[in-house]
Amino acid sequence: MADLYEKVMDVAKRRGFLWPSFEIYGGSAGFYDYGPLGTGMKRRLESFWRRIYCIEEGFHEIETTLIGIESVFDASGHLKCFTDPIVVCKKCGEAFRADHLLDGVRDISIPEIDKLVKSSGVVCPACGGELGDVEEYNLMFSTHIGPGSKRRGYLRPETAQGIFTNFERLLRFYGGKLPFGIVQIGKAFRNEISPRQGVIRLREFTQAELELFVHPNDKKHPNFDRFSSKRIPLLPAPNQIKGEDAVEMKLKDAVENGIIAHEVLGYHIALCWDFLIRAGLDPKKLRFRQHLPEEMAHYAADCWDAEALTERFGWIELVGIADRTDYDIKAHALKSGKELKVFCEYKKPKKKTIVDVRVDMGKLGPLFKEESSKVADAIKKLPKEELEKDKIKVEVDGKTFEVDGGVVEVVQREIEVKGEKVTPHVVEPSFGIDRIMYTLLEHSYYEDFVEGEIRKVLKLRPKLAPIPIAVLPLMSKPELIDPAKKIVHEIRKSGFMCEYDERGFIGKRYRRFDEIGTPYCITTDYQTLEDDTVTIRDRDTMRQVRVPMKEINKVVHNLILETWNFEKMRERYINI
Amino acid sequence: MADLYEKVMDVAKRRGFLWPSFEIYGGSAGFYDYGPLGTGMKRRLESFWRRIYCIEEGFHEIETTLIGIESVFDASGHLKCFTDPIVVCKKCGEAFRADHLLDGVRDISIPEIDKLVKSSGVVCPACGGELGDVEEYNLMFSTHIGPGSKRRGYLRPETAQGIFTNFERLLRFYGGKLPFGIVQIGKAFRNEISPRQGVIRLREFTQAELELFVHPNDKKHPNFDRFSSKRIPLLPAPNQIKGEDAVEMKLKDAVENGIIAHEVLGYHIALCWDFLIRAGLDPKKLRFRQHLPEEMAHYAADCWDAEALTERFGWIELVGIADRTDYDIKAHALKSGKELKVFCEYKKPKKKTIVDVRVDMGKLGPLFKEESSKVADAIKKLPKEELEKDKIKVEVDGKTFEVDGGVVEVVQREIEVKGEKVTPHVVEPSFGIDRIMYTLLEHSYYEDFVEGEIRKVLKLRPKLAPIPIAVLPLMSKPELIDPAKKIVHEIRKSGFMCEYDERGFIGKRYRRFDEIGTPYCITTDYQTLEDDTVTIRDRDTMRQVRVPMKEINKVVHNLILETWNFEKMRERYINI
Repeated sequence: MADLYEKVMDVAKRRGFLWPSFEIYGGSAGFYDYGPLGTGMKRRLESFWRRIYCIEEGFHEIETTLIGIESVFDASGHLKCFTDPIVVCKKCGEAFRADHLLDGVRDISIPEIDKLVKSSGVVCPACGGELGDVEEYNLMFSTHIGPGSKRRGYLRPETAQGIFTNFERLLRFYGGKLPFGIVQIGKAFRNEISPRQGVIRLREFTQAELELFVHPNDKKHPNFDRFSSKRIPLLPAPNQIKGEDAVEMKLKDAVENGIIAHEVLGYHIALCWDFLIRAGLDPKKLRFRQHLPEEMAHYAADCWDAEALTERFGWIELVGIADRTDYDIKAHALKSGKELKVFCEYKKPKKKTIVDVRVDMGKLGPLFKEESSKVADAIKKLPKEELEKDKIKVEVDGKTFEVDGGVVEVVQREIEVKGEKVTPHVVEPSFGIDRIMYTLLEHSYYEDFVEGEIRKVLKLRPKLAPIPIAVLPLMSKPELIDPAKKIVHEIRKSGFMCEYDERGFIGKRYRRFDEIGTPYCITTDYQTLEDDTVTIRDRDTMRQVRVPMKEINKVVHNLILETWNFEKMRERYINI
Repeated sequence: MADLYEKVMDVAKRRGFLWPSFEIYGGSAGFYDYGPLGTGMKRRLESFWRRIYCIEEGFHEIETTLIGIESVFDASGHLKCFTDPIVVCKKCGEAFRADHLLDGVRDISIPEIDKLVKSSGVVCPACGGELGDVEEYNLMFSTHIGPGSKRRGYLRPETAQGIFTNFERLLRFYGGKLPFGIVQIGKAFRNEISPRQGVIRLREFTQAELELFVHPNDKKHPNFDRFSSKRIPLLPAPNQIKGEDAVEMKLKDAVENGIIAHEVLGYHIALCWDFLIRAGLDPKKLRFRQHLPEEMAHYAADCWDAEALTERFGWIELVGIADRTDYDIKAHALKSGKELKVFCEYKKPKKKTIVDVRVDMGKLGPLFKEESSKVADAIKKLPKEELEKDKIKVEVDGKTFEVDGGVVEVVQREIEVKGEKVTPHVVEPSFGIDRIMYTLLEHSYYEDFVEGEIRKVLKLRPKLAPIPIAVLPLMSKPELIDPAKKIVHEIRKSGFMCEYDERGFIGKRYRRFDEIGTPYCITTDYQTLEDDTVTIRDRDTMRQVRVPMKEINKVVHNLILETWNFEKMRERYINI
């Protein structure tokens, strides 16, 4: 029997959501294309994400290059740390992820894995041959920029680095003030050793990332109240170790009890939850799992993954929400020699005592001639207690100079300090768009039994359905086709995607649109010719209402933007 | 004095439209990032393109991988033909595009360029050193897929190949019928030898491409009438050779006189023109130039470029509209061994005469025993005139067999043929989004003199402006700030990007928004507190109207979607 992955992928491939890339040349693991319906749905998912993160939350988007130069990934640590342990078969030459050949091995060092592989007697899973040494394998795709091999480039492993390298310009764009946030949606790459999980593990994938720059000592969120009483299933690290399941917790309690480190992290866990649910994921198959200390990425201090339950793959990560602290900004400051800091004013200016040491050059000059200014500088650097002595000794260029305490005057004064320069911390929600796409398909898919046949349905939200509206003449007759085409034209003119279909029996056509998640079908029939009304059929209940043609645009608009649902339609129009 | 490119790029860099990538590490030629405003504008440009090509024209979009395997580019010809002539200095090692070191050289072979470089005595422009041999340099970025170097991958040089390799699935998606069209918007790459034209020549860029599959013998367009009387400035190849300028021509005449090869090409030239003008390019600085035969890409039969006039770079290509004929589909069919054809029904079934050759096996069997069926097959393959002879001779496995003519009967019959399999032709409009972006900035930029100061303005269309609306309290006072923030919240909730700004004098703030192309600023002032009205200021005329707060959402909606202009506002509201 086909499992759910197979059933969903059957619809996905057959109808044009997801296609293995380069299929005519035998394909290549880890690469998938989005067909017309997959792309339509992905565009809508990305728009919905932008609606929440850019428009509602007010974070601007940037678009940086996919190819990065070596310095960027040297600084970020990807050159050194973005690796997997690899082992190659001595006989057939196939490569494997070494830790995947061992049971229950997680996050141990290369030499340790090597020892385990050798001691356990594991052989090549492909040919039974002897395996070589376990080595480190960098997961970035590398290339060369321009002719020759002098200038190495890498395909970015995450969109985030493009934001970090533009930090100075972004800070200026936001008026030099914290907090500020920047998002990016785009491709990222991970040259997996041998990806074997279909659309779940891709070598080329789409990320939607937010980098939120906050003051290291202020991780409160001004709108935390919005979500504070929201209940979310959380699986903290200690509970995982004890083998427990996720438990629903009030966000406020989770932050107050230190389960979630701070409000900013808590707010973004809740915002992410909100996004995933409103996109159409099943809340009963969703949880937030905290990373165990040993699985944390090289840059993260704390990290929570939004995980979704799938039939074949179990719980899979859809989103990672990490506190990257000042790791990245400090690393780029060090590597580039730029001061990547933000001047932050204190709430109240702070008083600070400044000690001025004044040296009487009129007396020092005649004594030490051309060496006198060097001597004065050395004196100024002495500790306070030395300066209070009667005779002050300093050493300059190996020579000792002695001066009378009277030539030095120590003056203390109080100044006001308005603020200080700080390296911001970064909180990063990072969404794996492709996995969300697949999970949406799986969580939306169901079959029921209608009129003696299996009906396959994708219960997609209207705002994500690639074809939100289809217009079908009841029969392929000119008098029904004409008004149907007129409606199609009207709907497209007002900016919505709309399909027209006259091929085959109406029941078959409804099924075709159920299978691709079209929530509403409009049908012209013989009553249309009498009273200018059409029917609108609801995918989920299969019920229909009859609506005047002149109201179609308004109705379609409200249904697709989800300001109306079908219940409302049944109250408002003729329920048939 | 700064030229226009410098002025535009000053605004673009300072305000966050375009930033050189990896600037903190010294940058890298050919790579630019889009800052927050550039990205906002690019998103809007892409949406507008989708609005026209996907929703109005009905072409579905797909999204294929950026990394392609070797077979794809072997078939497409990019491995062999996507090259530039390169020459490297023997002394300093710098690489140059060889043909750019010679004057007026265009599209000649590598050996010819090599001869010219050597005979002309050109030296290295960087150090004066001697140059090496001219060689072919492939412009694709290459990488390896998975571990080791066995599986070479390339970053796609155009989005089109991802559409061609999915041809079979796409044909099925469109019900197996021509014509159909598929679009793709995404990154493409060209590893230039030494790009020196700023944002005009990028190594990583965004394309928006349509691949329209049509019947090779039917290049009429059903909606050609829509544009047939449109006048467009055209510069055909013969006129270029004569050194003439573009001339305005009626589209219909251009197609009828064979200047534009066919209606499909003509329709898409007009649709492209329409898009560019409605996006905001200056029609006086736009033309369509036909490729000269020698500059045509390796796959194209005819090609027209939409070119825009820029101050520093002269006429630059923004869009190429090519008839790629069956080049690509045939190439992929050959390489993959798949039959990439479409069964096309004739308008009327055709009659065809079929010749059946029947051999009397009852007579042949006893004569030739086990060899008789081979002999019969050989007889059936003989030409008609041989079959009409009294004695028929055939050779099978080196042996000659002779049979009496009477054992063979030749029957002719007429059959009806419904259609035939054809390889479709492809018409491709290919848009360079980054160049359109830059040109929009340049064509939109102007300076005027207001209140004793230079006012810098980007006259962007409201639908493309990254910040379409700004809300400014007249002064930074709580009683004016509160209603202003309420308006911001309202506008964002209805899905539009909107900025809030209270820093500095109102005049300065208007200037800041003029410079980034914000078409409308809403201001709350003391009259707002009395009668709940606000002012809306128009960027271009600097005039204002006073509008009731409760109508703001409707007004903003209509202004941004360009269903109202400011003239209409002045008629409708209090003109101040």
